[in-house]
Amino acid sequence: MTTETNKIPYKIYLEEHEMPKQWYNVRADMKNKPAPLANPGTGEPMTAEELEAVFCKELVKQELDDTTPYIDIPQEIQDFYKMYRPSPLVRAYCLEEKLQTPAKIYYKFEGNNTSGSHKLNSAIAQAYYAKEQGLKGVTTETGAGQWGTALSMACSYFGLDCNVYMVKVSYEQKPFRREVMRTYGAKVTPSPSETTAIGRKILEEHPGTTGSLGCAISEAVEAATSQEGYRYVLGSVLSQVLLHQSVVGLETKTALDKYNIKPDIIIGCAGGGSNLGGLISPFMGEKLRGENDYQFIAVEPASCPSLTRGKYAYDFCDTGKVCPLQKMYTLGSGFIPSPNHAGGLRYHGMSGIVSQLYADGLMEARAVEQTEVFAAAVEFARVEGILPAPESSHAIKVAIDEAKKCKETGEEKTIVFGLTGTGYFDMYAYESFNNGTMTDYIPTDADLAAGFASLPKIEK
Amino acid sequence: MTTETNKIPYKIYLEEHEMPKQWYNVRADMKNKPAPLANPGTGEPMTAEELEAVFCKELVKQELDDTTPYIDIPQEIQDFYKMYRPSPLVRAYCLEEKLQTPAKIYYKFEGNNTSGSHKLNSAIAQAYYAKEQGLKGVTTETGAGQWGTALSMACSYFGLDCNVYMVKVSYEQKPFRREVMRTYGAKVTPSPSETTAIGRKILEEHPGTTGSLGCAISEAVEAATSQEGYRYVLGSVLSQVLLHQSVVGLETKTALDKYNIKPDIIIGCAGGGSNLGGLISPFMGEKLRGENDYQFIAVEPASCPSLTRGKYAYDFCDTGKVCPLQKMYTLGSGFIPSPNHAGGLRYHGMSGIVSQLYADGLMEARAVEQTEVFAAAVEFARVEGILPAPESSHAIKVAIDEAKKCKETGEEKTIVFGLTGTGYFDMYAYESFNNGTMTDYIPTDADLAAGFASLPKIEK
Repeated sequence: MTTETNKIPYKIYLEEHEMPKQWYNVRADMKNKPAPLANPGTGEPMTAEELEAVFCKELVKQELDDTTPYIDIPQEIQDFYKMYRPSPLVRAYCLEEKLQTPAKIYYKFEGNNTSGSHKLNSAIAQAYYAKEQGLKGVTTETGAGQWGTALSMACSYFGLDCNVYMVKVSYEQKPFRREVMRTYGAKVTPSPSETTAIGRKILEEHPGTTGSLGCAISEAVEAATSQEGYRYVLGSVLSQVLLHQSVVGLETKTALDKYNIKPDIIIGCAGGGSNLGGLISPFMGEKLRGENDYQFIAVEPASCPSLTRGKYAYDFCDTGKVCPLQKMYTLGSGFIPSPNHAGGLRYHGMSGIVSQLYADGLMEARAVEQTEVFAAAVEFARVEGILPAPESSHAIKVAIDEAKKCKETGEEKTIVFGLTGTGYFDMYAYESFNNGTMTDYIPTDADLAAGFASLPKIEK
Repeated sequence: MTTETNKIPYKIYLEEHEMPKQWYNVRADMKNKPAPLANPGTGEPMTAEELEAVFCKELVKQELDDTTPYIDIPQEIQDFYKMYRPSPLVRAYCLEEKLQTPAKIYYKFEGNNTSGSHKLNSAIAQAYYAKEQGLKGVTTETGAGQWGTALSMACSYFGLDCNVYMVKVSYEQKPFRREVMRTYGAKVTPSPSETTAIGRKILEEHPGTTGSLGCAISEAVEAATSQEGYRYVLGSVLSQVLLHQSVVGLETKTALDKYNIKPDIIIGCAGGGSNLGGLISPFMGEKLRGENDYQFIAVEPASCPSLTRGKYAYDFCDTGKVCPLQKMYTLGSGFIPSPNHAGGLRYHGMSGIVSQLYADGLMEARAVEQTEVFAAAVEFARVEGILPAPESSHAIKVAIDEAKKCKETGEEKTIVFGLTGTGYFDMYAYESFNNGTMTDYIPTDADLAAGFASLPKIEK
């Protein structure tokens, strides 16, 4: 399918002037728009005014805009992007050789910045709009810390306060990311904490708790709404985040176009959907407009299978149930992934955009188990040199599967996948894999039923 | 001095075809050659045959060759370089703005590979020549683990055994790099160990010891020389390593030349001298040939000041005294840096090439204290986005000092420094800085005298 020359370099870098100057809003080309965010009390669509109590004004505008296809990237954000972007589109020559596949494999590598992932693409945008609005700072939650790290870098750049509620068990057991955040000037609070009403309540009810992401979200939202000059920001799931992450897909498309390469399959790992949505957006736009066809594959952990085993329904975005409801593929906000699950991709739901595209049959989803994911990660690391994040390795696993199929069939497919980040802060997980003590977990139907029982009763 | 346009991008990347195809051997242009390695027993120059018992044949040839200016980079190494090189030459626009300096600051960033540093440039070359020689594997030592990580990646690529003796205290307290090495298939042994005679002897004499780099070197050398098909490899100090690291300087020079930029000051951190030597080599060549003049500054920790306070003398390269003697600036192999010293650059001596250049007045050296180094690191991280390794931050500190001088004088100097790596595995050091508990240490004259007392009696 591809008409390529022999001259494809190992890494395709764009020139500065080729970098995107606008984000692409895939919703503008979707016939079936994602369902609107809903008020958790009434089930009615959230108004801009309601959302602005929690989120920055300009970001609310972006969240609600499902018709404008291209949105200008402010110059200040473009300048910041130039510090760590464009990210390379890498031709995986060594992996192809190892697999002895006729497939051509490319990956867009987003790990070459201190946050270690694609998260910085949206963090800098959200910090910028907070600064523009004249805010003092922002609040957020973080689990393992990728998002918190990215946000602390962005806030440091714009001189904003950055208050991060970090799940207590991560705060204590994973001090490295905590210290990266502190190095960037962020205030990192182990959650639950005494600094919020909800935190105090939880500590009273569960004195020994090590915290949860849901609790940290609730504390971060309370901290934002109870202080003058603060707003809450979120690193995935929201449509605004996918908009900012479209920079990944746009760069990928420009790089491929430079060498006249047309991908057949585009693969991304899927937790909340921000990396996947950003990577596929411009290609999906072509598919939606009938200009080109591509096969899209979302890869999720078998232990947290929102697309492959979840329900498409309105659900709470947080376990504290303070955020707006979103219609999405979800396991229920009460679903808790097995503690043996390493790495991220633990979110119970999925971006509304990705959910709608999946519901409309425009993309596929696969669930994979973590030991096979780590085996793929190690195979990749040894030939391509990059130590991948566990999250990113979900995409590697399926890319390798597809390349092996090509070997069987002899098809010379072009496969592109998103390598979202590096695994430097995930060495405990690698250690358990190296030692052979890592296990798999697939939730039973009863586990899923317990999660679904937490879905709100309001259905639209 | 610089005639630059307004069009310098944030990051200058070379095209694949612009990457170096030969290493540059600065010794060829040195009037005063580095003194030859000497036999620790006789003081006589080591012969190729003697060296080949420990090191790979082709590497011995490179070690002894002080006349050939350019040495071809084998195609297999060039191909590997293409996976993670060229590294970007970054214009530090944000740092310049923060400092309000008229200076133009550039840094060559070597941290964007899984080893997290420039070490991979020589590791892949050494692994290649070991493979070419038909060896089964190589042995080495590692402290914090940068070199071991790089070597394990290189050996994995060529299918070589990689046996790393890791200082026991690091093995136990810094498990992350250990696991990166294991992920790449290396066998990592805490040193001292029961696997060697010297290890058993040390364990018997000092049962509770947590090890030292000197002991790990001795074990690695013993393991190489006592097994069929193995050789010992080293990540710094040796002339062959500086030869391989010249790829850093050559890329830097090509990138600057593309934009017609002539640096005034070139700065590198100096432990064993491999990064510094590699970065400055092609520029130093021009200076040696009288074609151009540059100011070169080596930056070392005040706690381990081999250039600024050491003696220029023949010394042991290892505390186990099994390696050849080298004439170098040294604190004596018995010198032990204060335990409060974070990060690398703990080596008692200095590359023979760098030592001779320094002795001949061709470059300067400065010693800096670690709290001011970390302050510079944090300042840099917050505006330039990259979390630097403590080692690299020594160069940052002096680059900032020089840029501030330019602010005072109004001079628009062009400053280039080497940013050798990232600090992801150094977060305990950052934590102590963030908490205000980091301290400085400058050895007393008595401390130095104790180190000098360990110098060998054989002087040439």
